[in-house]
Amino acid sequence: MNKIITSKDNNKIKNACSLKLSKNRKEKREFLAEGKNSLELALEAGVVKEIFTTKEIKGIKDDIVQYIVNEDLLKKIAFSQNPEGIVFVCNMQERKLKKFKKVVYLDKIGDPGNMGTIIRTALAFDYDAVVVSENCVDIYNEKVVAASKGAIFLLPVVKGNLEELKEDSTVVVSALTDKSVEPKEVKVENRLVLVIGSESHGVSPETLALADYVTKIKIDHIDSLNASIAAGILMYEFNR
Amino acid sequence: MNKIITSKDNNKIKNACSLKLSKNRKEKREFLAEGKNSLELALEAGVVKEIFTTKEIKGIKDDIVQYIVNEDLLKKIAFSQNPEGIVFVCNMQERKLKKFKKVVYLDKIGDPGNMGTIIRTALAFDYDAVVVSENCVDIYNEKVVAASKGAIFLLPVVKGNLEELKEDSTVVVSALTDKSVEPKEVKVENRLVLVIGSESHGVSPETLALADYVTKIKIDHIDSLNASIAAGILMYEFNR
Repeated sequence: MNKIITSKDNNKIKNACSLKLSKNRKEKREFLAEGKNSLELALEAGVVKEIFTTKEIKGIKDDIVQYIVNEDLLKKIAFSQNPEGIVFVCNMQERKLKKFKKVVYLDKIGDPGNMGTIIRTALAFDYDAVVVSENCVDIYNEKVVAASKGAIFLLPVVKGNLEELKEDSTVVVSALTDKSVEPKEVKVENRLVLVIGSESHGVSPETLALADYVTKIKIDHIDSLNASIAAGILMYEFNR
Repeated sequence: MNKIITSKDNNKIKNACSLKLSKNRKEKREFLAEGKNSLELALEAGVVKEIFTTKEIKGIKDDIVQYIVNEDLLKKIAFSQNPEGIVFVCNMQERKLKKFKKVVYLDKIGDPGNMGTIIRTALAFDYDAVVVSENCVDIYNEKVVAASKGAIFLLPVVKGNLEELKEDSTVVVSALTDKSVEPKEVKVENRLVLVIGSESHGVSPETLALADYVTKIKIDHIDSLNASIAAGILMYEFNR
């Protein structure tokens, strides 16, 4: 079903704009996403509530309303420079971590681009979930959603704590310590929990205490890799 | 030497702000950078022209002027949310690609965050340079400089074309084609040129025609990895 909106004071526009704030997302259990590819994956996941678009999109089921808006209105609700003429509202899913073979655990990751990219990479390497600690950036932050390129609709991303995950698992923490071994020395025989710490503070002593292995990627010249690059290399390494 | 600046109309402030535009950077052969770590690496490279800071920095040689400014003035010239109280102007270096063992070649990479992260990763994995094609994002774009975390001061980043690099080299192109092989099947016996294409358009037919190997990282569920993640995994893989 299509409806045309021309006023910026329309309630649907106001609701969409309000979702730029974390507290409104939490209260309404809704969040924003953009772009064609993301929309396809969100439709596949069945989470699309309504769509704002500059041009009718073909093949959308009739129970999802398409609000046709002009470029200026779209810009008002969009958060990136190039939303490809499409911004949509999603319902948050109730997602729980069930049995898993391998997950990535994010320990206080604050950069939304890093979190989104890690979610995308985890899906690509067939991880079962991304588990986030307290004090990570909001999962539904628009930059997380954008950097995940739609992976956030297909992969469970849940809050959790490392102590609970540790049972029956091999906890592999990426960190530079005296005990750090090279990735190829890590032997995972049961379930894998790969832990990535924040770039600015690294991993906490409490997290290190739960590690079965502490691993580091051998690098020269500089202190560290970007967190999403380190995560990507380790997910690749432990995916064989 | 320290000088205090209190007016936003001061010529030094105006010059710094002007460097946010590519055409001014090119004309003046200067660019902006931010933060403590970056400043350390830039000083090491000998490219710092002048510093704007909210608090005198100890240990800076006397021929580099420190302009002491208030928070508001610093915000005016800064480009990130958190410049750590330091913005500085750098002189562009004349950098040429000499003999190399391994380089990364960027084919029309448009995202500055990706370019900066790839420069950082290339330095960490001891590559000799990053070579950029025509139509890449400007090397001195502030987001490139920021994402490189100072690596841009230590690693040659130069314009070049793949045809010239091909001589005596093994050209390995990251792309999804019928002929793509897994990274472990790639044998590099001379010099390595690792080619990363733009995320939106991939690599051009002209680039593919110059490939000795086309390689792809095996992934599931989604079409592609982020360009800097793919680059990071392949640099790691070909660094052993």
